[in-house]
Amino acid sequence: VRKMLHTLSVPIIQAPMAGGVSTPALAAAVSNAGGLGFLAGGYKTAEEMRKEIAAVRELTDKPFGINVFVPGEEDVDEKALLRYRQVLEKEAERFGVPLGEAKWDDDDWEAKLTVLYEEKVPVVSFTFGCPSSDIIAKLKDIGSFVIVTVTSPEEALIAAQAGADALCVQGPEAGGHRASFRNTDAVYESVSLLVLLQQIREVVDIPLIATGGIMHERDIAAVLAAGACAAQLGTAFLRCPESGANLLHKNALVDPQFQTTAVTRAFTGRPARGLVNRFLIEYDNLAPAAYPHIHHMTKHLRKAAAQANDPQMMSLWAGQGYRLAKDMPAGEIVRRLGEKVKEVIGEMMGCCDE
Amino acid sequence: VRKMLHTLSVPIIQAPMAGGVSTPALAAAVSNAGGLGFLAGGYKTAEEMRKEIAAVRELTDKPFGINVFVPGEEDVDEKALLRYRQVLEKEAERFGVPLGEAKWDDDDWEAKLTVLYEEKVPVVSFTFGCPSSDIIAKLKDIGSFVIVTVTSPEEALIAAQAGADALCVQGPEAGGHRASFRNTDAVYESVSLLVLLQQIREVVDIPLIATGGIMHERDIAAVLAAGACAAQLGTAFLRCPESGANLLHKNALVDPQFQTTAVTRAFTGRPARGLVNRFLIEYDNLAPAAYPHIHHMTKHLRKAAAQANDPQMMSLWAGQGYRLAKDMPAGEIVRRLGEKVKEVIGEMMGCCDE
Repeated sequence: VRKMLHTLSVPIIQAPMAGGVSTPALAAAVSNAGGLGFLAGGYKTAEEMRKEIAAVRELTDKPFGINVFVPGEEDVDEKALLRYRQVLEKEAERFGVPLGEAKWDDDDWEAKLTVLYEEKVPVVSFTFGCPSSDIIAKLKDIGSFVIVTVTSPEEALIAAQAGADALCVQGPEAGGHRASFRNTDAVYESVSLLVLLQQIREVVDIPLIATGGIMHERDIAAVLAAGACAAQLGTAFLRCPESGANLLHKNALVDPQFQTTAVTRAFTGRPARGLVNRFLIEYDNLAPAAYPHIHHMTKHLRKAAAQANDPQMMSLWAGQGYRLAKDMPAGEIVRRLGEKVKEVIGEMMGCCDE
Repeated sequence: VRKMLHTLSVPIIQAPMAGGVSTPALAAAVSNAGGLGFLAGGYKTAEEMRKEIAAVRELTDKPFGINVFVPGEEDVDEKALLRYRQVLEKEAERFGVPLGEAKWDDDDWEAKLTVLYEEKVPVVSFTFGCPSSDIIAKLKDIGSFVIVTVTSPEEALIAAQAGADALCVQGPEAGGHRASFRNTDAVYESVSLLVLLQQIREVVDIPLIATGGIMHERDIAAVLAAGACAAQLGTAFLRCPESGANLLHKNALVDPQFQTTAVTRAFTGRPARGLVNRFLIEYDNLAPAAYPHIHHMTKHLRKAAAQANDPQMMSLWAGQGYRLAKDMPAGEIVRRLGEKVKEVIGEMMGCCDE
């Protein structure tokens, strides 16, 4: 199992996307096509996670993965959080919903670890931190392949030393949450995925998965050239029929009124990249670092906005390459990209011979 | 000559670096090793440029290029410019030099075009804008291969329509000035080089040169996979013996006291990426968009800082991958990278066969 990534017939991993996007159907479709599908454990209870694992197993015999959020400590500026709450109250009133309680929680961490130990999922990845070496060792003992998501050489070193089998290297191009171990501003001046891959290759010698802005077969070939052994794609699967993304979110990706993405703490209190909409523009500079506090505070508001058909008030997570997202079955995306990656590499070889 | 880029035995272009870095010796060394060396016409008079062209021709029979800045209009906030001047006065006094006059100029544009028409340089590239289709046609008529540097799909379309033979696609990772046609803030939320290459491939069908953060053979292989026909490297040549960079600048690239790069208008009034030093930290948020006004205003101060051995007050241009810059003859860098790029592509091919 330590060779896990080399057994994939297509070097494509479907990124875990929490909040309902990553369904068992999506994960299974990707795995059945020769890639590696992923469930997103974040924001679910441990028991919901267990049910999704069972559901994927109904749909595929191939390996699949599950991602879990590592809880972190958060030193919150309570005054700034209260000010932000007061400003958002009027938006919530407009939709007739209350703001949620701005509380910390550990996303059911211990219970989720128990599920992981019991269910023996082929691949387990972590986001927002690095679990202890004991936890990683225990998962490896039961046969899971363990991936830690990192955003810097420092995090890469910590994860490699804790025993991770592979690292998922997330560039700042990525949609959704920045996976950094701490809730810092560093994302705003982060080096790009290509630069980050070389920086991390300088300090660790374990398999790297590249993620962030990867949509096209040429992006995949590029990160393989850069030394990654697989590419992880999230936004590329958002519009698939198997994706659980809200239809407004799917449509926004190809709607010319959304012209670009930006990184913001406005929705959850942690930096995350999404399409620039009214919520992001108006509240970006008011939102303090407070995760998952602001996630809980805004979740009813965002859900009500979706029900009211208002994409301007939803979190429309998207990576920088979002314009290339296709409404196509996930398995077909994996197969097509897989074939075209081989063509690109063949072309490069031809260039060398000339 | 339209096939210019395909005649290079190594797909490496040495980026033009104005301000004394790009010497005739550097350009000739790169061209002699099978890459494409470049002179930087910016900040020079047309006659100085002509002398450098002659100097390169003494050193190589191979093709080489020269880059020229396209003058732009600048709508300057004079009050903000005056405030910035007042703040910088005390720094200038400390070094015993006057601030320069904060004036606009066209960097000797017409006279430089005349030199280009007369000298028939094999490759001519432009930065900060797109020349008229008449100018491009005239350069092509006399046998020059014309490259326009672009930072967005919109700029790519303009340059292709104006008749450019190829585009140099600059990602936000790049050191030195952002080449955007206008002096906007867009660099702060620009998509990365890999994403930009695919966006531009969607709208134009002419050869693309990739630049920004490229240091390693794997970066070069990656941008070739991404569809570029060559990689342009600047920072990778900064520490070469042939580079005219100030020794303090060369040393800063490997000095642990400089931990990261950032984009700022502090030095020249136009966004440019450099090592984060005291000047950048203290003045970044005071500098208005005013180019080349602020360049002229700070140039004596920066020169005096260099003479006083104070790298904290100099512009230390550097791309995101700067840590990999090597003190090695330029020709050797080109030859080594060229060989290793072929190895990387060979490895990728091997992976596909398995």
